[in-house]
Order: sequence, then C-alpha cells, then structure tokens
Amino acid sequence: MSTTSRKAVVLLSGGLDSMVSAAMAREAGYELYALTIDYNQRHRVEIDAARAIVARLNIGRHVILPLDLRQFGGSALTEDNIAVPKGGGGADIPVTYVPARNLVFLSLTLAWAEALGALDVFIGVNALDYSGYPDCRPEFIAGFTNLASLATKAGADGSSFSVHAPLQYMHKSDIVREAVRLKLDLAMAWSCYDPQPGNQACGLCDSCRLRRAAVAEVGAQDQTIYSMS
Amino acid sequence: MSTTSRKAVVLLSGGLDSMVSAAMAREAGYELYALTIDYNQRHRVEIDAARAIVARLNIGRHVILPLDLRQFGGSALTEDNIAVPKGGGGADIPVTYVPARNLVFLSLTLAWAEALGALDVFIGVNALDYSGYPDCRPEFIAGFTNLASLATKAGADGSSFSVHAPLQYMHKSDIVREAVRLKLDLAMAWSCYDPQPGNQACGLCDSCRLRRAAVAEVGAQDQTIYSMS
Repeated sequence: MSTTSRKAVVLLSGGLDSMVSAAMAREAGYELYALTIDYNQRHRVEIDAARAIVARLNIGRHVILPLDLRQFGGSALTEDNIAVPKGGGGADIPVTYVPARNLVFLSLTLAWAEALGALDVFIGVNALDYSGYPDCRPEFIAGFTNLASLATKAGADGSSFSVHAPLQYMHKSDIVREAVRLKLDLAMAWSCYDPQPGNQACGLCDSCRLRRAAVAEVGAQDQTIYSMS
Repeated sequence: MSTTSRKAVVLLSGGLDSMVSAAMAREAGYELYALTIDYNQRHRVEIDAARAIVARLNIGRHVILPLDLRQFGGSALTEDNIAVPKGGGGADIPVTYVPARNLVFLSLTLAWAEALGALDVFIGVNALDYSGYPDCRPEFIAGFTNLASLATKAGADGSSFSVHAPLQYMHKSDIVREAVRLKLDLAMAWSCYDPQPGNQACGLCDSCRLRRAAVAEVGAQDQTIYSMS
C-alpha cells in the first residue's frame, strides 16, 4: 500500500547501504526509479547485486548508466595498480576514495529526477561507520540539497528537491537490523571492494570489515562467502 | 610562456563560449586538460569541433567521456521527438534545457581535477546573452564552488577549488571580440543545436541566433555555413 504515489530516484550501487535505503524508500510509498552507475569499478560485480535488489523490491525502472571513471583514475577502485588496503581503517581518507564520486552520482540522480518530474532522491550514505570519505558527510548532503534548486528549473518554479539520506546517522549494526526488519537477504547485497576469484568477497577490505563486524554484532544471517575464511 | 604551471581542467563542448574560455585559460598560463562529454546530444558534431580546438590550442590531454543522457531524456537535445525551437527566444526556460547538465558536467570536471591534483576548473557559461538556463546563473556557479570543497578531499587539507567562468558577465559580442583578439577561427567552434544535412548549422535555433547576431554586431569573419541562407 502506498502512502503516497510520488516518484523517487534511488541511487543503487548494489551494496548493503543502498539496498536498505531503497527498501526504506519503498516502504515509505514512493514509486521507485533505480539508478546504478557502471563506473568501471574494480568491484563491478556489485552491479549484478543491484539487479537482484531491483527484482526483489519490484522496482519498475532500472537504469544502469556506463560512466568510465577509469579515464580519470585516482582511486584504488578505478586503477588496478593501486591496491585495496586490507589492514583495517586508519585515520586518513583511504585510497579507495573515488574523487568527487558522490557529487557526480547525486548530480546524475538529480538529472534523472528532474527529467521524470520527481522531487525526491535517496542515497545510502552513512557518516558513522564508514571509511571517512568527505562526500559522505552530512554537510556535503546539506550543501548538495541547497545547490539542487540552483542547478535546475526547480528554483524557477518555487519547488525544491529533497535529498534523503536515511542511513546518515545510523551505525552499521543498525543498518543490518533494518535490513533484517525489512526481510532483506543480506547476501543479496555486495560490499567487497576487491572481489576474489569465483566472486568471493575478500573479507579484509574496509567495506568487508565494517559489514562483518556489524553482522556479527547483530547475530544476523549473511550467506556471503569470504575467501579468507 | 607560462606565467604559472598550475594545471586546470577546462570543460570543452566545442562551442564558441567553451573555445574562448579555454583560450583565456591558456593565455593565463595554465597547463590545460580538456574534458568533453559525449552525452549523445543531438548536435554531437560539436565533439569534432572540440577536437579541432584541442589541436589548435595545443592541449596535451583530451578526455572525451561517453555519458548517455538519452537514458534520462527530458530535453530537445536528448530526445529526438522534442523539436528544437526555431522562432527566437521567449521568456521561459526553453526545451533545449538539459536537466542538471552543468551540475553533472562540472562535477565530472571536478572529479578529474581532483584526480590530477588540479585546483582550477574553467567553464564557459554566460549569464547575459544566453537561453535562460538555470545552471548558467552566477549563483549556481558560486554555489558549486562552495560545494566543491565539501565534496572532495580539499576540505580536509585546507585547499579549495576555483571555478573560473571568465565569460559570465560578457555579452556575446564581447565573446566574439575576445575570440578575434585571441586569433581564433570562429568557424572552428560549433554552436547549432539542430545540425542539418551536410553538417550545416540551422541558423534559426537560439544558439545560432545569438551567435549570428553577435558576429554581425562585431563585423567579425565567420565561415560557418548556415542551411537557411
């Protein structure tokens, strides 16, 4: 049952956070349009996860947009010769940071929303248990929301966009709990930055570590196969 | 002779404004990196113009990045079934407006700049003689500049990006004069939104009208062939 029939564009990487964010948008009654960016990322296998999530959530329209960020490089996720760190988080912004990625992706989400006549967009950023990326901070999301109206027709007709980041202040364990409450199969979502042969997750990159710790804390079921175990 | 060796990324559509903006950046002594977005636009012939401009300005690195905005549509430039208006400008934002285009393109420009270690980007937007697009307004450029530091590592290390829009307050005729001063062949730049058979410019779309009027006012040479004449 829809509480509203408003359209929303959800940014769906195929990871745990975007899966839960999209499911929350669906529960809120939005008519969903899912956008996945194929940025030629090291872990492109996450796009298969995005497809499975779209099917599971009955999302009617899914755009998988190729955008080859390897042309720019500058990240372990877009350059094969920069290794993904496996030793656990440090204090600095890690080399898995992709320059301006969330700005680029949110801008594309907004572009599609404007073309559709949608005023709501969802992104699964998280600012508590994350890798310290600058473009996951609440002040970035707030700044983007302000700019959205200047960048589009919305400013001219008095309407404004809402950028929903429902996981922003949640711990990873709370996100796992939310996935369980929403009856989502955790193994459907792909988190690993550095897929191993046979498409197993490495278990040791920051993204695997955050997920594994949260799943263990909650005591949730996650059928993901890790190559190091 | 360089007065500085700082790197700058210039957004280069292949149009008149981006050609002049890039030439001004070069005159200022920046080491240029040109970014052209192949967004499957109706006037993709402008990409050939961008290549010619890159050669003329001796720009060492040119990325032509495919990004199929027809997947979103919502503009006469990205949907074949929306006609390009030929009757001269009205008061409303015209159907040639592409949803959030400058936000998307500037975000990509910033992404490459950050990967390169450049802090300067150039865009040829103009807020006087233009088509009324919201993302050409000075307040958009100012807002983007503020967001650039929140969206990237720059905020973390205290540096900040400069978004140069040297044509922002120039009349189109002044832009033509600047092209002449910089010894640029006007015909090298492509303006028309609706290319005609034989890659002739239509002469009647807003972009052709603005250019023709400015060239006539200045009395400049422009070998562009228009199909209606």
